[in-house]
Amino acid sequence: MEGGGDDIQALITLMARLPGLGPRSARRIVLSLIRRRDTQMVQLAQLLDRVAVNSRECLSCGNVTDRDICPICADPARATGEICVVEDVADLWALERGRAFRGRYHVLGGTLSALDEIGPEDLGIPRLISRIHEDGVTEVILALNATVDGQTTAHYIADALEGSEVAVTGLAQGVPIGGELDYLDDGTISAALRARRRL
Amino acid sequence: MEGGGDDIQALITLMARLPGLGPRSARRIVLSLIRRRDTQMVQLAQLLDRVAVNSRECLSCGNVTDRDICPICADPARATGEICVVEDVADLWALERGRAFRGRYHVLGGTLSALDEIGPEDLGIPRLISRIHEDGVTEVILALNATVDGQTTAHYIADALEGSEVAVTGLAQGVPIGGELDYLDDGTISAALRARRRL
Repeated sequence: MEGGGDDIQALITLMARLPGLGPRSARRIVLSLIRRRDTQMVQLAQLLDRVAVNSRECLSCGNVTDRDICPICADPARATGEICVVEDVADLWALERGRAFRGRYHVLGGTLSALDEIGPEDLGIPRLISRIHEDGVTEVILALNATVDGQTTAHYIADALEGSEVAVTGLAQGVPIGGELDYLDDGTISAALRARRRL
Repeated sequence: MEGGGDDIQALITLMARLPGLGPRSARRIVLSLIRRRDTQMVQLAQLLDRVAVNSRECLSCGNVTDRDICPICADPARATGEICVVEDVADLWALERGRAFRGRYHVLGGTLSALDEIGPEDLGIPRLISRIHEDGVTEVILALNATVDGQTTAHYIADALEGSEVAVTGLAQGVPIGGELDYLDDGTISAALRARRRL
């Protein structure tokens, strides 16, 4: 108890459990919200409620959206022939911010993992494969994380598409834009060196 | 637009404006909430709404609370003879976590500032002085920040109480518990040295 009342204390406790926050930052946020309780705090409560009630997974790609089909899948201007496969919605959003990709997505919701007993069915990979064949997809970009599980999953999908006409590609690995060599890990430097290109 | 829908985007924008958060951490929090939309997200929306509607300033001390008189002021076990004066509610909460003070508080809501044209009336200092005299307060602890404005405010209140029976005290300055001398600023080290005590 910090003298604020039970609800205020409960709010701080709940906030402190959000990713990246702790008791100290949660207290700071709650106090700042209480100072703007008639505007910002009411608005935040309403938006949270609306998003909690309306948000769902896009039936086509798995993106988080407030409609059955997300704006990306519903956009006729986006190429249906290219599907970019990502692990989760955060990756999809990151790619959208890059504005370089104008095709469709498929969100796996995780990676294959023998340890956690996550198999192809849990990730909807059979559904992805049939979607690829039904929609006449010509290129599948496997934008999975460069972790062991991410790469295992990429190999599994690539294997499942072998023998079909579909081109399977992956993101280039190399030095990040603006990155300093001195701060990069050895693996990235060797990968960038192996994939060097003529200027 | 990140493909999530207008409400989701608005929620991220609103979250990113909270103290200590930015677009990246707001996106992470919103995605994590959407994953727990039926439990954590609904709960957070309800708590925010309840606190926004019910929270107010304690009529006696200025603490944030969901009643007219906060639990500290309403607690008969707390000494009415000691008043601890703080700049804002965050300071009050910090002192309560320390569990060392068992008296009452008075939240100024800021400091005197010639630059920002904040005078004694804006901080309710006349009301504080009359409260001190009416309640038969014997000690006023000025727990104000060690900034120029904080110390100006402390001096102003101390001056206003001069000639009365009330003892005016301030927090001790010195080395924080667990603090390493090497990392402390010079001012704190000199203050701790000047106020040294026999062991």
